[in-house]
Amino acid sequence: MSPRLRHLTTLEHLPRETIERLLDRAEALRDACAHGTRKLDVLAGRTVLNLFFEPSTRTRTSFELAARRLGADVVNFDIGFSSTSKGEELFDTLHTLEAMHLDAIIVRHKQSGTPDELVRHAMSGVSVINAGDGNRAHPTQGLLDALTIRQHRPDFENLTVVICGDIRHSRVARSDVHALATLGVKEVRLCGPEALLPATDEFAACPRYDDFDAAIRGADAVIMLRLQKERMASTELPDEAAYFSRYGLDQRRLKLAAKTCLVMHPGPINRGIEIAGEVADGAQSRILEQVGNGVFVRMAVLNEVLAR
Amino acid sequence: MSPRLRHLTTLEHLPRETIERLLDRAEALRDACAHGTRKLDVLAGRTVLNLFFEPSTRTRTSFELAARRLGADVVNFDIGFSSTSKGEELFDTLHTLEAMHLDAIIVRHKQSGTPDELVRHAMSGVSVINAGDGNRAHPTQGLLDALTIRQHRPDFENLTVVICGDIRHSRVARSDVHALATLGVKEVRLCGPEALLPATDEFAACPRYDDFDAAIRGADAVIMLRLQKERMASTELPDEAAYFSRYGLDQRRLKLAAKTCLVMHPGPINRGIEIAGEVADGAQSRILEQVGNGVFVRMAVLNEVLAR
Amino acid sequence: MSPRLRHLTTLEHLPRETIERLLDRAEALRDACAHGTRKLDVLAGRTVLNLFFEPSTRTRTSFELAARRLGADVVNFDIGFSSTSKGEELFDTLHTLEAMHLDAIIVRHKQSGTPDELVRHAMSGVSVINAGDGNRAHPTQGLLDALTIRQHRPDFENLTVVICGDIRHSRVARSDVHALATLGVKEVRLCGPEALLPATDEFAACPRYDDFDAAIRGADAVIMLRLQKERMASTELPDEAAYFSRYGLDQRRLKLAAKTCLVMHPGPINRGIEIAGEVADGAQSRILEQVGNGVFVRMAVLNEVLAR
Repeated sequence: MSPRLRHLTTLEHLPRETIERLLDRAEALRDACAHGTRKLDVLAGRTVLNLFFEPSTRTRTSFELAARRLGADVVNFDIGFSSTSKGEELFDTLHTLEAMHLDAIIVRHKQSGTPDELVRHAMSGVSVINAGDGNRAHPTQGLLDALTIRQHRPDFENLTVVICGDIRHSRVARSDVHALATLGVKEVRLCGPEALLPATDEFAACPRYDDFDAAIRGADAVIMLRLQKERMASTELPDEAAYFSRYGLDQRRLKLAAKTCLVMHPGPINRGIEIAGEVADGAQSRILEQVGNGVFVRMAVLNEVLAR
Repeated sequence: MSPRLRHLTTLEHLPRETIERLLDRAEALRDACAHGTRKLDVLAGRTVLNLFFEPSTRTRTSFELAARRLGADVVNFDIGFSSTSKGEELFDTLHTLEAMHLDAIIVRHKQSGTPDELVRHAMSGVSVINAGDGNRAHPTQGLLDALTIRQHRPDFENLTVVICGDIRHSRVARSDVHALATLGVKEVRLCGPEALLPATDEFAACPRYDDFDAAIRGADAVIMLRLQKERMASTELPDEAAYFSRYGLDQRRLKLAAKTCLVMHPGPINRGIEIAGEVADGAQSRILEQVGNGVFVRMAVLNEVLAR
Repeated sequence: MSPRLRHLTTLEHLPRETIERLLDRAEALRDACAHGTRKLDVLAGRTVLNLFFEPSTRTRTSFELAARRLGADVVNFDIGFSSTSKGEELFDTLHTLEAMHLDAIIVRHKQSGTPDELVRHAMSGVSVINAGDGNRAHPTQGLLDALTIRQHRPDFENLTVVICGDIRHSRVARSDVHALATLGVKEVRLCGPEALLPATDEFAACPRYDDFDAAIRGADAVIMLRLQKERMASTELPDEAAYFSRYGLDQRRLKLAAKTCLVMHPGPINRGIEIAGEVADGAQSRILEQVGNGVFVRMAVLNEVLAR
C-alpha cells in the first residue's frame, strides 16, 4: 500500500494507488452523505486553518465545509489580500501558526511553489494542503475532476479528454493532466490559442490543438477553463465574441464530441465567453457535480493527512 | 394547522397562524434560555450560510448566534460588498452553494425581490431566509417587533402603533405593517415627511401623518426608523436639527402617547437625529429587548424551515 | 484566595496570587495538551465575541483558538477597521451585543481605556477581556511573557529582565512591567532612545538606559519590541540601519547577557530592524514558545472569567 500522505501540494508524481485511495474515500463519503450522514467526528478536536493570500470564496468555503463535516474546527486567518507575504515573513507566519498547535494549513498563494516551501520550513507535525499556487497546481481540483469523470466513465483506458482554454496559466489544467495521466486516461488533448498553450516540452505526451472543432471530435469529456479577461491581450483574438467563436463550447461544437461527452468547468463560469449558457445548464453538464465532489474530495484529503 | 414554511422571504400573505406559531416558538426559546438553556442540538449536522451582499454586522451576527444555538454550523460566504451579483451570476452562485449541500441560505441584497428569485431558481431542498432585500421586506425584523410588542401588550386588537421616519425606503416598516396588520393591531399610523411616506395606494388602511405630535397622540407603541443621511436631501427639511424637531422622538413628544407607550427602533440608533438619547435609554425603551428577541425569532425561523 | 476575575482589562494592581493562579492554570492546560488533550468542554454553550477595532490577525486567532479549545462558540464581529466607534456609539454597540446574550467580549481598540469604559457601561453579566488598548495594556501578552520566563527561570527574585525599543508607545511593555514587578522580578531595565522611553515618573523603580550594551549586560531575559516605522522620525536615529546598530539585538550584544539569557519578542518581528534573524532563530530564542503560551494563557483567562 502506498504510504499515507502527510501533505498535499501537487498530484505530480503521486502514485496511482494514492490517487485511487483518495477517490475511493471521497466516493464512500458521498455515499454516506446520500444516506443521510451529515457530519462525522473523525477529526474532532483538530484545527484546520485557511491561509489564503488570494481571494477565493468558493474554494475556501468548500474546504471549510469539508473540515467541519469531519468534526474539525476551522479558523480563517485573514491575512488581507494586499499582503505579499513571502520569504522570511511567510515562514515567520508559518512558525507562528505552528506554535499555536494547528493540525493543518490550507494555503492559496499566487507564487508557484509556496506550499512546498511551507512543507520544507515546517517545524512541527502540521500538514500543508495546497488550495492553488500560481500557475502550478490545484491538486484537489484535479482530484475532483477525476472523481467526476470516474463516476460516469470508470473505463479511463478508453477515454479521450479535452482541456480547452488558457492552459498555459492554469493550475487547474496542470493538476487535471497529472491526475488523468496517472489514472491511465488514453488521451488528454490540450486546446487553445498558441499563446495560451504550455511550452511544447511540458506535457509532451498530450496532443496540442488550436482548432477546437478538431480537438473535441469524439471526446468523452471536455474541461473548459475560465478565461481571465486580461489574457485576451496575449492572443490574436480581438474580443470575447471572437474568443467564443473559436474556443467557446456551444451546442454545435458539443455535437462533434461523443454522444455522452461530459461537460466540465472549474467555475465560476463566464457565460458566452468560454461556454454557452445552454451548454453549462444542459443535460451533459457535470459542473455542479464537480462542486459537490469538491467537498467530498477535500474531506478525503483532510482525512488522509490528519487521521491518526 | 398552517403548513410548515420551507422559506421565509416576506411576511406579506403569511397566515396569522403561521406568524403566531413562530412567535410562540421564539417565546418558548426565550423562556428556555432564561432557565439556563444555552444551546440546543436540534439542528446538529445542518449547515447555514450567510450570503450578505450588503454589510450588516448586527443582523448577520444575530443569525449566526441563532443558528449556532440550535447546534448548526455557520459559514460566512464573503462575497465582497462591491459585488453586484445578479441574474445568471447570482443563480450560478446559488447553484454552486446548493451543490455543496447547504441546508439554508440567509440572504441580504440591495435589490428587492432577490430572495424570491433564489427560491424560484433553487434546485435542491435548500431553504432561503430573507435578511433584508432592498426596500421590500425584512421579515425577521417584523417578527421580532411583533414579539416585543406582544410581550408587553398581547391585546393587539386595542393597540395603536406609530411608525415614524423614512417609511418609503424602509423594509423594516413594510415587514412591521405586514406583521402587525395580520396579527390584528387596531391601527398602524405612518408618519414622516411626505417625500418619505409610501405611495398612497400602499398600506391604504394605515392613516398617514406628517405631524408627529398628532400621530403619536395616544399611541401604545412607536417604532422610530433610522434616518439614512442621504435621504435628507429629498425632504424639505434643511438639516438634522430640523428633522429632529419635526420627526424626532423626545421626552415632550413621548408624553403625548399613552403612558406605557413602548419605544422601539431597529437600530443602530442615531441619537439626536431620529431619537433623543434620553428616550432611547429611558424606562419605556424596548430597543435592547428587540435585539434579544431578534435572536430568539431567528432561532424560531431556522427551526421552522430546517427541523425534520 | 484572591477573588475570581470577572473581567481582565489590565494587570496593574492585580494581586500576585491572581496572576500566579492564571499562570498555573495555563501551565496545567499546556501539560494536558502535551499529553494529547486537544479540546475541553468547560465552556460548552458559552459564546465569545471578538470585537476588534484594530486589525490583529495573530491575537484574534490566538483568542479564537483558546475559546474553541475550551468548547466555546466564537463569533467575529467585523466592525470594519475604519470605524472610530467611541462614546455613545461604542456603548450602543456594547449593549446590543449584551442583548444577544454573549458571555465574553474580547476587545481591541486604539483608544487607551476603552475596555474599562466597556466594563463600566456593561449592563449584563458579560465579561470584558482586553486584547490591547492604545498604549496602555495588553494583559494577556504580559501574562504569556511572564509564563515563558517562569518556564525557564522560576527564580524571579534573582532575575534581571531588559525591555528594549519603543517603550513609550508600547502596551506590551506596560503589561510586562506590571506582571514582572508583581511577580517579584529583581530588576526590569527599560532601554531605548530617550524619545521612546516613558515619562520619568512612570515606572520610577525601573532603571533606564539609552545604551543597549550597558542595559543587556548580565540580563537573564531580553524582550525586544517591534519598531513601528513611523516612530523612527521621533528619534535622532536617521534610518533603520542606525536603529539596529544602536538598539537591535544581534549575536555580539546577546553575548553580553547571561549565558542562558532568554530572547523574547511579541511578534511579528522585523528582522534586521530590532532583531537579527540569526538571534530570532537561535537557540536562546523563546519567540515561538511565547506564541504557544499565548493560547494557553488566553484559555486560562477565559476559563477564569467564564467558568461557573
